[in-house]
Amino acid sequence: MKDVVKIGVAGLGTVGAGTVKLLSEHRDILADRSGTQIVVTAVSARDRTRDRGFSTEGLTWYDDARDLAADNEIDILVELIGGSDGIAYDVCKAALENGKHVVTANKALIALKGVELAQIADANNVTIAYEAAVAGGIPVIKALREGLAGNAISRVTGILNGTCNYILTTMREQGRDFADVLAEAQKLGYAEADPTFDVDGIDAAHKLAILASLAFGVEVDFDAVAVEGIRSVSALDIQLAEELGYRIKLLGIAKQTPEGIEQRVSPVMVDRATQISKVEGVFNAVALEGDYVGPVVLQGRGAGERPTASAVVADIVDIAAGRSAPVFGVPAERLKKNVRASLEKHTGAYYLRLMVWDRPGVMAEVTATLAKHGVSMASMIQHGRAETEGGVVPVVIVAHETTEAAMSGAVNDIAAFESNSQPPVLMRIESFAS
Amino acid sequence: MKDVVKIGVAGLGTVGAGTVKLLSEHRDILADRSGTQIVVTAVSARDRTRDRGFSTEGLTWYDDARDLAADNEIDILVELIGGSDGIAYDVCKAALENGKHVVTANKALIALKGVELAQIADANNVTIAYEAAVAGGIPVIKALREGLAGNAISRVTGILNGTCNYILTTMREQGRDFADVLAEAQKLGYAEADPTFDVDGIDAAHKLAILASLAFGVEVDFDAVAVEGIRSVSALDIQLAEELGYRIKLLGIAKQTPEGIEQRVSPVMVDRATQISKVEGVFNAVALEGDYVGPVVLQGRGAGERPTASAVVADIVDIAAGRSAPVFGVPAERLKKNVRASLEKHTGAYYLRLMVWDRPGVMAEVTATLAKHGVSMASMIQHGRAETEGGVVPVVIVAHETTEAAMSGAVNDIAAFESNSQPPVLMRIESFAS
Repeated sequence: MKDVVKIGVAGLGTVGAGTVKLLSEHRDILADRSGTQIVVTAVSARDRTRDRGFSTEGLTWYDDARDLAADNEIDILVELIGGSDGIAYDVCKAALENGKHVVTANKALIALKGVELAQIADANNVTIAYEAAVAGGIPVIKALREGLAGNAISRVTGILNGTCNYILTTMREQGRDFADVLAEAQKLGYAEADPTFDVDGIDAAHKLAILASLAFGVEVDFDAVAVEGIRSVSALDIQLAEELGYRIKLLGIAKQTPEGIEQRVSPVMVDRATQISKVEGVFNAVALEGDYVGPVVLQGRGAGERPTASAVVADIVDIAAGRSAPVFGVPAERLKKNVRASLEKHTGAYYLRLMVWDRPGVMAEVTATLAKHGVSMASMIQHGRAETEGGVVPVVIVAHETTEAAMSGAVNDIAAFESNSQPPVLMRIESFAS
Repeated sequence: MKDVVKIGVAGLGTVGAGTVKLLSEHRDILADRSGTQIVVTAVSARDRTRDRGFSTEGLTWYDDARDLAADNEIDILVELIGGSDGIAYDVCKAALENGKHVVTANKALIALKGVELAQIADANNVTIAYEAAVAGGIPVIKALREGLAGNAISRVTGILNGTCNYILTTMREQGRDFADVLAEAQKLGYAEADPTFDVDGIDAAHKLAILASLAFGVEVDFDAVAVEGIRSVSALDIQLAEELGYRIKLLGIAKQTPEGIEQRVSPVMVDRATQISKVEGVFNAVALEGDYVGPVVLQGRGAGERPTASAVVADIVDIAAGRSAPVFGVPAERLKKNVRASLEKHTGAYYLRLMVWDRPGVMAEVTATLAKHGVSMASMIQHGRAETEGGVVPVVIVAHETTEAAMSGAVNDIAAFESNSQPPVLMRIESFAS
């Protein structure tokens, strides 16, 4: 590689500024580790006057990031603008076509335009690296793409959104409701003013789609991800889960099934003895399962200026040192089309919680209906007796492994009973070996 | 890189056989991931007749691995013989000098001869890769060397020996003594007939020395590691630790201190709320702390045919794909000499457990002695009163952060008291942010 590798940074928000600062602060060890001098020579951002905590003296400044992508001086373009289309897409595409490597933290872009960008990268003999796009500072892209390259992967599971994990952890620890904790998280800066991307699971789904592509060698297929956020998770279900030995987590799960790949982001219950259930607060974690390695769990900070800059710089060092891997682990032309598994055929255990008027015969009706659909019960808890006769009580059923179709059928029938005081709540239970 | 990368495997024990089987079983996905055909063309082992679960037809067989190292056909020599000198050392050295890359699972070799081998590798423009040498299938070498390349590392901590972790876990869960659980572990195949390398901490120390070199950019310095195994850990201390909210783990800890690098393998107490305390049974885990990324924890299977083969093959794929890094993260000539921190200057919290004759004035003596040495107590538990007056009771003191010198001074004085029925037990408490 060259003696000096020149970096252009597009976007000087917190992560962009953090990246520039890291590259400067650790200049000497990065030179030892990469075998080259890594130097930021150009940047682009809209506001030249803002104080970002570093000097822009000597840097070529572009108001338009598209001009930065055309700068023939730079070797690597670092895209930290965000968004799956518009300028971020234009800039990455132009840089790749211009023979520059791209490093990005942009999960939406990779999840939605990844295949096209990988093809362009391959055609131009450059790469697009995106460690920072998934799970922040945790080197999970590298672990999956290189560290576990000897394995057929059967499942990837992740706590991929720190905001959701923080909210769920706080709800459990303090017995509070979603809306209340979200409002507090917004005040503390752990959740955005518009929390939709986070709490509705979209951010996690972007990341899951990327992990699934790497794990299974398929074209990234964001639309295949069934997405459900955490707005409907109640303090009651969190508490009942604890009693049963489970914890509720927003998990992204991608798994190989006989008929295709199942991809979901949703609140699920996991055994409290498992490693992933113990990942709390703003931390992220990814559990990978390979046929040779068995289960591997990686945990760390999934967001923030410094952890994200760490991942961006790891990608820069790799490229500067002449190490690169195909964008999704194999050349774009070798990626298979994704075959989606029917979600109805999902098999697993389930948690079903009813709120019923406490009258004789209700349980007989419920258990008969489950039996009719071939659903077998592992356990049941009925919480106390209502204080006044005919009051409302929660009834919780844990079903042994069954199909989603059978379970949905049973729940649809049960939902029609007059004994319900509110609609049943159904949640999948995900099993882990460790 | 070439269209075909030819592999010679020296040593066909369980890991060698597992590696050959993996390379064959996943031939197609490995070709996609590496961009080359990876083919085993030659092997060496002493016994040609043993059934290893794969056919050796068509493979060149060498009785002496030194001849394999001289085979001009092969591109990568995979050393799975073991041991820090003798044939393993000869074979790796010869292969590197012969311009071949080396992949090894040999922690003793890297810990004791790593610097010399790295120099030879650099001089011959090849690499020696050893992901399998530390924490089995967990891609921790890659994470530290590449994934966290943007960070100054402050501390590396690991549960690096599955046998010890299994024994400590079982002792705690079943309230049993070390000798008893060791005997069972030997019967189950979790411990060797001669368990010295494992239970006395030597295996973990080899791995820690390697991690320290990568983390801090220093020459690997096995002799700098203060090593203490788990033979003296008692069921009583495990139980008392639980009561105090701690768990006893055999940890390898390497940390940067103002005066040098402190490296230890010893039983320590860790807060039960931390992630690393929850890694149980045969699992390994490594916690890395970087100035940008914060804490990152990786967990998985640290030994066994298949996890180890997974790591060996990951290294093979990297080399076949043309990705390589300097042996210890930076060129051998850029490695700094290791500066050892004085262990006496270690600062941290401590657990001190006495068994004392339950007489008036004992506690006053003990607390006065701690105070005299400037050691401040965080908490104390005295376990019940002895049933007969003048009986023996355990007294546990948790000391606030202090120096090892102060603590040892106090313990030496306390050990001289006539009130002791047996020598005091002192254990370090290690703190983690998560």
